Amino acid sequence: MPYVNIKITREGATKEQKEVLIAGVTKLLQETLGKNPQTTVVVIDEVETDNWGIGGESVTVRRKRGQ
Amino acid sequence: MPYVNIKITREGATKEQKEVLIAGVTKLLQETLGKNPQTTVVVIDEVETDNWGIGGESVTVRRKRGQ
Amino acid sequence: MPYVNIKITREGATKEQKEVLIAGVTKLLQETLGKNPQTTVVVIDEVETDNWGIGGESVTVRRKRGQ
Amino acid sequence: MPYVNIKITREGATKEQKEVLIAGVTKLLQETLGKNPQTTVVVIDEVETDNWGIGGESVTVRRKRGQ
Amino acid sequence: MPYVNIKITREGATKEQKEVLIAGVTKLLQETLGKNPQTTVVVIDEVETDNWGIGGESVTVRRKRGQ
Amino acid sequence: MPYVNIKITREGATKEQKEVLIAGVTKLLQETLGKNPQTTVVVIDEVETDNWGIGGESVTVRRKRGQ
Repeated sequence: MPYVNIKITREGATKEQKEVLIAGVTKLLQETLGKNPQTTVVVIDEVETDNWGIGGESVTVRRKRGQ
Repeated sequence: MPYVNIKITREGATKEQKEVLIAGVTKLLQETLGKNPQTTVVVIDEVETDNWGIGGESVTVRRKRGQ
Repeated sequence: MPYVNIKITREGATKEQKEVLIAGVTKLLQETLGKNPQTTVVVIDEVETDNWGIGGESVTVRRKRGQ
Repeated sequence: MPYVNIKITREGATKEQKEVLIAGVTKLLQETLGKNPQTTVVVIDEVETDNWGIGGESVTVRRKRGQ
Repeated sequence: MPYVNIKITREGATKEQKEVLIAGVTKLLQETLGKNPQTTVVVIDEVETDNWGIGGESVTVRRKRGQ
Repeated sequence: MPYVNIKITREGATKEQKEVLIAGVTKLLQETLGKNPQTTVVVIDEVETDNWGIGGESVTVRRKRGQ
């Protein structure tokens, strides 16, 4: 019954990588807390780099500087 | 003043259906808790089926199997 | 499979009222979008009035003024 | 280390305006609570007006009436 | 830089179990997407069973029936 | 009409500091995007340090090491 929300920048995560994330988080909750995988929900949000800030500036600006 | 976030998979909900959800949740909060509908906020997020996992796999994979 | 998060101020909602919210939102999603109630998740967050702001001030301050 | 999520309707906020929001929130948390700006994360969600409800109806409907 | 929010019912997860969740999710994001663990944020919300609904009723009610 | 959620660790933020955050974010949205302060909602979540992870471990563990 857990609900997990993963937010990452939209920078090319593939369907296969997202399947790995969904399976991995679900398994982690089952092994650690005994949660039923059948009712574990995982939602992945991919956020534009213009809309993600860290250190007081967007990731877009950071990427342009090579960070 | 309540804030409600509804997350569903992006599978063709129409504008009319979304109006029904917004009106229905707002009315439910008014009738149940006396909340002022004028300041009740409802945000609907429609999530790609690749990005929604349940049972350890994405909804995309489940839909292909007919689930 | 929908996920709904309802945020309200912590001002005495009873267990019974919260059951009404859970049942009502679940039914609304079933009737409007055909969503399976068995996998519809509803999470209610009750937030201290000090921690909820509207109009640039906390609900605590507004309540003291009679709003 | 704070995490801030700003949700606004998608109505033309520019990159420059989003940079101002990111910088401003980060500075506010630094000045008010001494939070380290280097690890302050800000995520901006722009939501379609069909998907944002207030007063029991979508912003799309309100905008058509001139609100 | 990812942000992960894990919501579970408040039913006795220990500090040690929460450390395992934090370490496990962080490692999963590093291995799957190459995300820097130093800036990966994980927030765990433990929600009262009265406030978590599934199948149209609270977990409190379900637990009383032995589910 | 914006909705802002600020998540910080629970480490003694005062009512006065939270009022400053609420007023400051509301003003920032008004000045930057012309948003109406009367309908801007700000919700502050204070999270236990056991439940906040960064760098693959909880803030509790980091604080013990002096970080």
